[in-house]
Amino acid sequence: MSRQHENKSHFPSIQERKNAIEVARGLKPADLVLRNAHFLDVFSGEFRSGDIAVYNEKIIGIIDHYEGKDIIDASGYWIVPGFIDAHVHIESSLMTPHRFSDTVIPQGTTTVIWDPHEIANVWGEKGISWALEESEGLDLDVFVMVPSCVPATPPQLALETSGAELTPKETLKFKDHPRVLGLAEMMNFPGVLYGDQDVLTKLDHFQDRPLDGHAPGLSGKDLNAYITAGIHSCHESTTLKEGQEKLTKGIHVLIREGSCAKDADTLLPLLTPHSSHHLAYCSDDRNPLDIAEEGHINAILSKALKLKKDPGSVFSAASYAPAQFFGLKDRGAIAPGYLADFVLLKQKAQGDWSSGFEVVKVFKKGKLIQPSPKDRSSKIPVKKNLNLASVTKETFRIPAGPDNKKIRVIEVIPHQILTKEFVTTLKGSDGELKADITQDILKISVLERHHGTGRKTTAFVKGFGIKSGAIATSINHDSHNIIAVGSSDELLAKAVNELIKIDGGIVVITADGAKETLHLPIAGLMTDAPAENVTIALKNLKKAAQKIGCVLSEPFLQLSFLALPVIPSLKITDRGLVDVHQFKVVSLFKD
Amino acid sequence: MSRQHENKSHFPSIQERKNAIEVARGLKPADLVLRNAHFLDVFSGEFRSGDIAVYNEKIIGIIDHYEGKDIIDASGYWIVPGFIDAHVHIESSLMTPHRFSDTVIPQGTTTVIWDPHEIANVWGEKGISWALEESEGLDLDVFVMVPSCVPATPPQLALETSGAELTPKETLKFKDHPRVLGLAEMMNFPGVLYGDQDVLTKLDHFQDRPLDGHAPGLSGKDLNAYITAGIHSCHESTTLKEGQEKLTKGIHVLIREGSCAKDADTLLPLLTPHSSHHLAYCSDDRNPLDIAEEGHINAILSKALKLKKDPGSVFSAASYAPAQFFGLKDRGAIAPGYLADFVLLKQKAQGDWSSGFEVVKVFKKGKLIQPSPKDRSSKIPVKKNLNLASVTKETFRIPAGPDNKKIRVIEVIPHQILTKEFVTTLKGSDGELKADITQDILKISVLERHHGTGRKTTAFVKGFGIKSGAIATSINHDSHNIIAVGSSDELLAKAVNELIKIDGGIVVITADGAKETLHLPIAGLMTDAPAENVTIALKNLKKAAQKIGCVLSEPFLQLSFLALPVIPSLKITDRGLVDVHQFKVVSLFKD
Repeated sequence: MSRQHENKSHFPSIQERKNAIEVARGLKPADLVLRNAHFLDVFSGEFRSGDIAVYNEKIIGIIDHYEGKDIIDASGYWIVPGFIDAHVHIESSLMTPHRFSDTVIPQGTTTVIWDPHEIANVWGEKGISWALEESEGLDLDVFVMVPSCVPATPPQLALETSGAELTPKETLKFKDHPRVLGLAEMMNFPGVLYGDQDVLTKLDHFQDRPLDGHAPGLSGKDLNAYITAGIHSCHESTTLKEGQEKLTKGIHVLIREGSCAKDADTLLPLLTPHSSHHLAYCSDDRNPLDIAEEGHINAILSKALKLKKDPGSVFSAASYAPAQFFGLKDRGAIAPGYLADFVLLKQKAQGDWSSGFEVVKVFKKGKLIQPSPKDRSSKIPVKKNLNLASVTKETFRIPAGPDNKKIRVIEVIPHQILTKEFVTTLKGSDGELKADITQDILKISVLERHHGTGRKTTAFVKGFGIKSGAIATSINHDSHNIIAVGSSDELLAKAVNELIKIDGGIVVITADGAKETLHLPIAGLMTDAPAENVTIALKNLKKAAQKIGCVLSEPFLQLSFLALPVIPSLKITDRGLVDVHQFKVVSLFKD
Repeated sequence: MSRQHENKSHFPSIQERKNAIEVARGLKPADLVLRNAHFLDVFSGEFRSGDIAVYNEKIIGIIDHYEGKDIIDASGYWIVPGFIDAHVHIESSLMTPHRFSDTVIPQGTTTVIWDPHEIANVWGEKGISWALEESEGLDLDVFVMVPSCVPATPPQLALETSGAELTPKETLKFKDHPRVLGLAEMMNFPGVLYGDQDVLTKLDHFQDRPLDGHAPGLSGKDLNAYITAGIHSCHESTTLKEGQEKLTKGIHVLIREGSCAKDADTLLPLLTPHSSHHLAYCSDDRNPLDIAEEGHINAILSKALKLKKDPGSVFSAASYAPAQFFGLKDRGAIAPGYLADFVLLKQKAQGDWSSGFEVVKVFKKGKLIQPSPKDRSSKIPVKKNLNLASVTKETFRIPAGPDNKKIRVIEVIPHQILTKEFVTTLKGSDGELKADITQDILKISVLERHHGTGRKTTAFVKGFGIKSGAIATSINHDSHNIIAVGSSDELLAKAVNELIKIDGGIVVITADGAKETLHLPIAGLMTDAPAENVTIALKNLKKAAQKIGCVLSEPFLQLSFLALPVIPSLKITDRGLVDVHQFKVVSLFKD
């Protein structure tokens, strides 16, 4: 299904094949030998003991005794293949690819499959090219799936305004890049089911490649149809029943554990020795704080082990299974011919996997990765991110409707990117509707920032708990306009103006006018600053959010998903309030 | 690793994708619906219940209720994906591909991976072309691996004379045929280990494809080296330890159950839910009698179930696992998008898998296969098979050596293609050495039949038990010269002359001069006759062999492997006795 990536049988020349055979036979020393290694056999799901010999980036021998130029005693470690993140938006780490690489490799992740969907929504084709350039030559191997839905909703529906639109023709341009594997999450599942021409054309172009899905809640015949159309995977199952139905119908179920959407506990019961070759893990959207404090794919693996899942299955689904699915035939196992990507672990309590584990050493292509960040800076091809004039409190004014007219309020569900529609009434004053702190009904606003259209929507949201203050950010899935939430129009204006001043990032304004900011100069989504700086800034922003009364543990991520009109139920974009079930803009006032 | 075969996401046009989506959604009736189906989910290893809906050769929906033009009540059956034979020489069935198809499909086999190695040894490139033409458009899907070792031993060693030699350049010619998957069994493992240029060139040419191995007994660093060189699979493990080492080192272990070499009981302990995605089954060389009486891949599956292996693992290794390994992404599962290849079974004792099962109905691409043979005849591009003059008893004369000189005798091991070297002395008479029935030491002779060289070797064999009679055949792995065994030079001559007269096949001559024959007009290896005729002929031949005293249950297959100089220990070719460990011709007389 997937294109031929260089595989374990590949050698650049016959002479290099000959050299590798001679080293494997023991006629010449290996580059590196791990002695007394205790490592996972992903084919049997059991641990084995002996040497691991590496030559020229590949494992060339296991079990048997080898001599090597460099010899490491691996006694006391458990060794498993490097972890694969099967679906990630690196942009959600707020870091550039090289900073992301430096951050996740020490956690044991050696390969990621990047859907550069966020940067594509801001910069279009230029964004995908940037993603490919910036992810070249890192310690981390970054493969790319071409974003299938830019914008997330079909442009003809005019549900939102993104920075760019990608036609099938533009999507196809990237197919032949050596690190492009396939087509990324096909979020437009109604487009698939109703036979939208552009959607089917994209599937047609990539039909010999992995086709990632995205179908929250889809089941029954519609799920059959979505799979029949050609979709291979999905990372959007949120119940065990949903995950099981997808697995049974042939979907590679990617168990997601992001910062906001956390499905591991729900879906891990699916993992068995049999199913482990058809499951994988992904982080999707995971913020730098969580990566630093809880970990990356290793955090999901520890959860699985705590649930007493057998380590053979747990680690196979993090390595061999996704490698096979994505056609990365050169990795995912500790066996001759495979890339020497492996991780040395210690169980937290010796002899007890359910205690979790610590990543001690990570080898990528046979090289021990040192934890010090590499010095490299990213190109910034677009200098100005926020294309809009400064705002005033009048910008957020909502004229009152008839007395006691019902209004639609977006209700946030903690730890989910789904929302509910909450219906209530607000008393108008001075001919306008204002936030009502007592009911936790705040104003929320989206302002178009790409094309200078001045288009904006202001409505109401429930669930943030902010008492006095405002948050604004240029991260706003997937169109990445400005989104702001606040207790008053004045504070909203202050937050948005501060965001415009720094040209993108995250801003929290407190009642006393104090501000906390994180500047994201790359497309208003990412920064090239070291991970520690980002982590500190994010901690300070979170503290500030708490200070203004915000009750959500992930205020910025939850805010930034309120504009994603492909995840039910009620969302807000620059075009208006969107009823996702009806897939159309609806009025603030409910009949 | 494997080339892109049309996969489950492939449609010839956007319109056809649209149609399939509509049928899957239930907007249009399916072609076929199996109601109350109880079918295997190969992803979880569990059975599921509901409908199976088929449209345009593919499954488009499972579990959910569908309407269809044709509806079948599948109550009471267990439904599993069609079986895949991962490595077969169709020539060993003595049947042409269309007869083979008609024979194995009713046993549940819907796809085979053919290594047309025998016909290639006789006809060379023409043989592979013939194999590809004759296997086109059958009910059975036949994929081809290009023979890697024609002849089996490197020509420069002059260990045998085959009908043809295939250079790397000739092998490469077939790579782009749509049904060619990769390179077949790399028997020349010494050539791999010692870096033979032609061998490495062939691996290089096919490095992006499945590369089948063949490495009996290889282990330790040499096995690491063989795998590092690029080899992916092996069907030659004969002990559990050998199979486990190969599996752990990343080899796809193909569990073989041929007519002669039977490894299922030995290797099935390897099968677990975890390993089931890395194992497969193959028949390699299986005669028509066994296929008719015991079955094909279904016979191995019944063995596995009798060993109480869980059905999820047993059937997955017969379908999804080999499909994935060979890059046949369009088959191997009962799920949307997959080819509608499935088998309806009944357990022999209800509720008890260990009782074995009976194949009741077989669907290929959604079509119920009727057991009646299709009328089709095969092309015979070469008319004359045996290019040698008739023989006399003098042809087989062996001049005596010095008195009491030790001689090497080939010792047959029942049910194995391995042999031993038995050392003894024979009393000469009239200056020559004769067969000694009392010691069960018979004469064995190989006569070159391709190029009219007149080259021949006569030596001794132990283990057949023939008292008075002779057997001759033109099936003689892999060079397929004439091989004959007999109790006297006169009877040997009679058998060989009769074989020459019918121009290829199998002949048994009894002491009273009666003869039993099977004519194999296609290269002296196959016939286009219906399977029943071949079966009857073979039964009569076996009876005749018993009548002359033969104690082997597979006399013809065991005889035909005595000339294969890549399987230890002592073999015979037209060039002489071959010591396989030394890989050279040795004298009849031992120092």
